[in-house]
Amino acid sequence: MEMSARNQLPGTIKKVTVGAVMAEVIMQVGDQELAAAITSGSVKRMKLKVGDRVFAVIKATEVMIAKE
Amino acid sequence: MEMSARNQLPGTIKKVTVGAVMAEVIMQVGDQELAAAITSGSVKRMKLKVGDRVFAVIKATEVMIAKE
Amino acid sequence: MEMSARNQLPGTIKKVTVGAVMAEVIMQVGDQELAAAITSGSVKRMKLKVGDRVFAVIKATEVMIAKE
Amino acid sequence: MEMSARNQLPGTIKKVTVGAVMAEVIMQVGDQELAAAITSGSVKRMKLKVGDRVFAVIKATEVMIAKE
Amino acid sequence: MEMSARNQLPGTIKKVTVGAVMAEVIMQVGDQELAAAITSGSVKRMKLKVGDRVFAVIKATEVMIAKE
Amino acid sequence: MEMSARNQLPGTIKKVTVGAVMAEVIMQVGDQELAAAITSGSVKRMKLKVGDRVFAVIKATEVMIAKE
Repeated sequence: MEMSARNQLPGTIKKVTVGAVMAEVIMQVGDQELAAAITSGSVKRMKLKVGDRVFAVIKATEVMIAKE
Repeated sequence: MEMSARNQLPGTIKKVTVGAVMAEVIMQVGDQELAAAITSGSVKRMKLKVGDRVFAVIKATEVMIAKE
Repeated sequence: MEMSARNQLPGTIKKVTVGAVMAEVIMQVGDQELAAAITSGSVKRMKLKVGDRVFAVIKATEVMIAKE
Repeated sequence: MEMSARNQLPGTIKKVTVGAVMAEVIMQVGDQELAAAITSGSVKRMKLKVGDRVFAVIKATEVMIAKE
Repeated sequence: MEMSARNQLPGTIKKVTVGAVMAEVIMQVGDQELAAAITSGSVKRMKLKVGDRVFAVIKATEVMIAKE
Repeated sequence: MEMSARNQLPGTIKKVTVGAVMAEVIMQVGDQELAAAITSGSVKRMKLKVGDRVFAVIKATEVMIAKE
């Protein structure tokens, strides 16, 4: 399955917090932490847990740029 | 200025393509490339160009997870 | 590859319009048309063209509800 | 009221889960299920409940494409 | 038609720029300018033009917060 | 820090509701209310509370237009 989403960063899950509807998944991506807020339903369906090798997938239209 | 957006990844601009309304900015972030689609107006206002040190900023609700 | 994005609707590409940075892909999904605005780079990389069998993928946090 | 959002798919609510801040609404759209994560405040304001005839509204810039 | 999107700000269109795929619409909302990037197809379908009274509609999950 | 996000509206926080994963922040922006759904982690990190002077930041690609 190939995705149009331009950004697919390999990482490892460090922490999963599951709420009633939304869950937060913290990934280690290179030397950065990346946070994803996805539905708790997806965490259960994909059985996401600490240590899983995953990809953080981000559509280019969702990326902003900041400059000091 | 502190931002609620959880993900702020430092990188360097590698390529800027400016269209009539939208522009694409390719950044090198660690050993990954990251693409951002922002308005051409923002590229001009911020004078974004190849070599600039920037941050890719991504709201946690925009990050998805893929697993093989 | 399994995706956290909850909505993955099978369809067929009916029209592709490629601009300098962004492209529009119109899909037939059941008896509905669905429009996607993705980067022209992704259209080229995936060689998307009329007649291709694809999935429209939509994160649940991006779906709104309207009621008459 | 006409909306710029290109995708407006008619459906029926099958399930509503309300959390402290976010709610999940599952709709039947044609022969597909569609999940929306909206605020619990909107579920209450619109009195959304199982059986309601609604539209799933999705901005074109939020739709991705996957191909096998 | 009632929308789940929490933020619906009344304003007036000040400028419309139409590209091959995407268009930019600048609105005056109170004493602020607000920019929207929507598809050129929607600008044409809704016949959006300078002076139109419109609403800027924004899903709560798309709003970030910055603090100095 | 300069941001590519085109819309940065000054306001004051009126209400904060913190859930397990997501939080809702209601701001007064001019004579309008604006709702943001951000992670509870960001509310804690930024110590957001009623009365804080903040900016609501919104990427142009996330703004839709409605017309009566």
